[in-house]
Amino acid sequence: MQQLLDDIAVRARPLAVEGKVADYIPALARVPADRFALAVRMADGSEHATGDTDMAFSIQSISKLFTLAMAMEWIGDELWERVGREPSGMRFNSLIQLETERGIPRNPFINAGAIVVTDAILARRPMLESSFRTTMRLLAGTERPQYDEEVHRSETETGDLNRAIAYVLKAYGNLREDPMVVTRAYFRACSMAMSARELARAATFLMTPDHDGPFVRGDHAPRLRALMRLCGLYDQSGEFAYRVGLPGKSGVGGGILVVQPGRYTACAWSPPLDRFGNSVAATAALELLAAELG
Amino acid sequence: MQQLLDDIAVRARPLAVEGKVADYIPALARVPADRFALAVRMADGSEHATGDTDMAFSIQSISKLFTLAMAMEWIGDELWERVGREPSGMRFNSLIQLETERGIPRNPFINAGAIVVTDAILARRPMLESSFRTTMRLLAGTERPQYDEEVHRSETETGDLNRAIAYVLKAYGNLREDPMVVTRAYFRACSMAMSARELARAATFLMTPDHDGPFVRGDHAPRLRALMRLCGLYDQSGEFAYRVGLPGKSGVGGGILVVQPGRYTACAWSPPLDRFGNSVAATAALELLAAELG
Amino acid sequence: MQQLLDDIAVRARPLAVEGKVADYIPALARVPADRFALAVRMADGSEHATGDTDMAFSIQSISKLFTLAMAMEWIGDELWERVGREPSGMRFNSLIQLETERGIPRNPFINAGAIVVTDAILARRPMLESSFRTTMRLLAGTERPQYDEEVHRSETETGDLNRAIAYVLKAYGNLREDPMVVTRAYFRACSMAMSARELARAATFLMTPDHDGPFVRGDHAPRLRALMRLCGLYDQSGEFAYRVGLPGKSGVGGGILVVQPGRYTACAWSPPLDRFGNSVAATAALELLAAELG
Amino acid sequence: MQQLLDDIAVRARPLAVEGKVADYIPALARVPADRFALAVRMADGSEHATGDTDMAFSIQSISKLFTLAMAMEWIGDELWERVGREPSGMRFNSLIQLETERGIPRNPFINAGAIVVTDAILARRPMLESSFRTTMRLLAGTERPQYDEEVHRSETETGDLNRAIAYVLKAYGNLREDPMVVTRAYFRACSMAMSARELARAATFLMTPDHDGPFVRGDHAPRLRALMRLCGLYDQSGEFAYRVGLPGKSGVGGGILVVQPGRYTACAWSPPLDRFGNSVAATAALELLAAELG
Repeated sequence: MQQLLDDIAVRARPLAVEGKVADYIPALARVPADRFALAVRMADGSEHATGDTDMAFSIQSISKLFTLAMAMEWIGDELWERVGREPSGMRFNSLIQLETERGIPRNPFINAGAIVVTDAILARRPMLESSFRTTMRLLAGTERPQYDEEVHRSETETGDLNRAIAYVLKAYGNLREDPMVVTRAYFRACSMAMSARELARAATFLMTPDHDGPFVRGDHAPRLRALMRLCGLYDQSGEFAYRVGLPGKSGVGGGILVVQPGRYTACAWSPPLDRFGNSVAATAALELLAAELG
Repeated sequence: MQQLLDDIAVRARPLAVEGKVADYIPALARVPADRFALAVRMADGSEHATGDTDMAFSIQSISKLFTLAMAMEWIGDELWERVGREPSGMRFNSLIQLETERGIPRNPFINAGAIVVTDAILARRPMLESSFRTTMRLLAGTERPQYDEEVHRSETETGDLNRAIAYVLKAYGNLREDPMVVTRAYFRACSMAMSARELARAATFLMTPDHDGPFVRGDHAPRLRALMRLCGLYDQSGEFAYRVGLPGKSGVGGGILVVQPGRYTACAWSPPLDRFGNSVAATAALELLAAELG
Repeated sequence: MQQLLDDIAVRARPLAVEGKVADYIPALARVPADRFALAVRMADGSEHATGDTDMAFSIQSISKLFTLAMAMEWIGDELWERVGREPSGMRFNSLIQLETERGIPRNPFINAGAIVVTDAILARRPMLESSFRTTMRLLAGTERPQYDEEVHRSETETGDLNRAIAYVLKAYGNLREDPMVVTRAYFRACSMAMSARELARAATFLMTPDHDGPFVRGDHAPRLRALMRLCGLYDQSGEFAYRVGLPGKSGVGGGILVVQPGRYTACAWSPPLDRFGNSVAATAALELLAAELG
Repeated sequence: MQQLLDDIAVRARPLAVEGKVADYIPALARVPADRFALAVRMADGSEHATGDTDMAFSIQSISKLFTLAMAMEWIGDELWERVGREPSGMRFNSLIQLETERGIPRNPFINAGAIVVTDAILARRPMLESSFRTTMRLLAGTERPQYDEEVHRSETETGDLNRAIAYVLKAYGNLREDPMVVTRAYFRACSMAMSARELARAATFLMTPDHDGPFVRGDHAPRLRALMRLCGLYDQSGEFAYRVGLPGKSGVGGGILVVQPGRYTACAWSPPLDRFGNSVAATAALELLAAELG
């Protein structure tokens, strides 16, 4: 297994040159483009990894997967009255569909949907900032996960489009808290920093139907995976499904998390992104991994 | 002339029952639906009026005409780098075009355009609130025009879509001031209360090419009129041009202002609106007036 | 197993009253609303069925799954230069995205995509009409599948929107044959009539990776399934994934086909549709089946 | 006056280098880029001209103005149930709005609208081809206007997007004749060849309210002018109104026709177009003319 991961790293890592590190905020632009990690956690609990496996990176939109899991656990089906479960066919931060569909975001993985999810959680967990960190630490089995203050600050400074989205949601009556409060909490979750190994471990609950973890009921796992398949990789979810074939969730920090139900979870990380916002080398690494592990 | 206006009032006023008073804010919803005014000011300075001619109403979007005139006067052609001069083909508060055209509003009479105009003026006149009131009083030739505090408060409370628009503009780099500050100034101008007679008088500068008024150069008049023709009545500008044939500007307070170059200005007022947001009876009154005066 | 299917029929069949039989063409509107069938074919070749299992119905868009399989087999990867693999987020016959994305349909399961697929096949198999029928008969293992002439005639008479789509494709250079010829061949495939049992059997190649059937390479199966998950049920693919969790393809004739890789294929049929064009009772039946079979 | 026109020609003609001759059909691409004409017809019947005044060019979309005038005359108000009178805010051949507004074109000057107008006329004048030519000859006061067969053939060969538009209209029930028949008639009118002098003369009916011409009632003139102002220059109608200030209608053959009510009509011609499809030098010439004549 170690040999397999090392081989994949040799083949996938050089592809990073085809991508471009996210530069919309300085804190992300500064991450060295040649970082690379691939971590796999098997159903039996064994872990295998290669590269910068323990280096923390900004999880960004991968946080949407975990906040959604929390919302499904803490809120239940009424969540789905406020956010849809269909692919959007548009960029993750588009306002167009939000207007034509009167404030109901297409799914929880586009920004508008994640902001609604954040708002819904805030009603139950006003201290979302510490709840989210505590949960991520429990899932990762370590106290290491923490917020990257610099990323958070940058995010807040450049977050006008997300604030616009929040005000549209408010205008259509689909936001309970103040848009400024909700977007702050949303930016906070995006700024969480974790390593590939920690993310693979934190996603264990998505692999095993009889999971007995700290907070997520086992029957949520297949539904979360269904959503990941449909819209986990922005407007490239179909391409990813076609090439990799596994439910996944990506972030502009360069990480991608996948799950093979009953068998393993894996997280690959490489900062340079393709034009859709997904890591080039991480996608390639997971494609090779999925092909090898069947 | 008085007979003509009275006759028009008799014919147009009953049509108000086909419309519906704006109810998105309580302060507007409370205005009695049967109010009606028609005021005409001729090129020679004579004035004729019928109905509730001296009753002040909320000028709402008619303010966009005056803020644009101020911006053209105080800022000049660089304004047009930030806002277009084409009809939008969409609702006045739509976000769609703003996104597809990357933060450049189609024209200064949709909300996004008026917010950009407000931002541009704020850079030159930080005390826009008092500048605007002073200018409107100068144009109207009376100290009566003032802000309706209740309308302003309501507007501010329900203005989330406009705040969303302002944040989109900010995200695309087309807003210099803070979105909260700009929208507050924008709501302020909308809440100005004036009578039909005062508005007809205030628009004199649009009628006469050699106008020598307090602040607007004569050569701006034909250009303002061209914009009024194209987009002065929201998404019914074409219909209005076809029926009335004069450059006009409407507001959801129920007022409509028109200009016949070199001959007269006129303002009609009746609160109930059609589904496009234009006063039913005021449109009819101006159609009759234009047909009679040729 | 028979007991299971009968139980499912008892529970799902009455839900048909919530739907509405497709009425855009008379030939479809005439199908009795209370028809119902559920057929399952296991990986070992055994078959189980309940209801009107051998009654042929119009497969409509389910044909898109088979024409795509043929195109992947006969044409190869160059097909993907002409059609995408992402969900559309829009109605199956929308022209909007086709224009904004300059003639490249989002995926092969919306009408525009299926028309491109048809055009691509026509270049290799000019006698597509007989090729398609022969292939469907081979896959179904019976000579029964045939075109419903009345459905075809109706389809042709009312197919203006599809002809419009074909002309847009032609205008953007993404159609080689004459739009009239291509749409005729497209309507032809949609008018194929088959029973639930035959469809379940015909889909066997999607179930088994080492399938050795008449025309489709085994490695196409996982990719076809990925596309079915993403866009097999029009703009309800996400909802279907969430509820049923299996790759599927529906048609407005009321049929839905699903695959559980390595285990079984199933086809449910009930004419009344929900507002998205998917059979209400067939969806419910497959949801129950998937829940029972795990 | 002759001096004025010659001066304008000297100043406007060189601007043609900033444009690009329409090349979507070979017959248009072959027209020499340095042709230029400016013709003015005064209310008293006197004519003044400079440049290639008697050279016939393809009138293209200027034909939409005349077919609309015919439809208003021959059909009456029921025409407006099938086509709107608002600016579209989109490209002249866009399909998007047609779909969202269910087959009712925004106005008669975008392609979809002109196709509906053509269809409406065909019901009254099945021999539209000869009716249109006869009318144009009557209006121009000469037998010279005729169809350019080569342009017509090219137009027909490349007209797939217009055929797509016609099929969408048919699908929404807003076309009575066969889409192929209507588009052929539409292409025919576009291929009419006339000189600048002939066009200025043919537009006389738009200038004088008490016009007593061959076919157009005087009271249609102000309404046609209103539409020209709003949407006569595609998606640059606002810009043209701002700069030139006169109702106009342009064509991709490089011609632009304007009217100053009660005073004059003018036609300028120069083949190179800006990116919106309007002649660069013709716009400039008319801007200078309007500024000089007031």
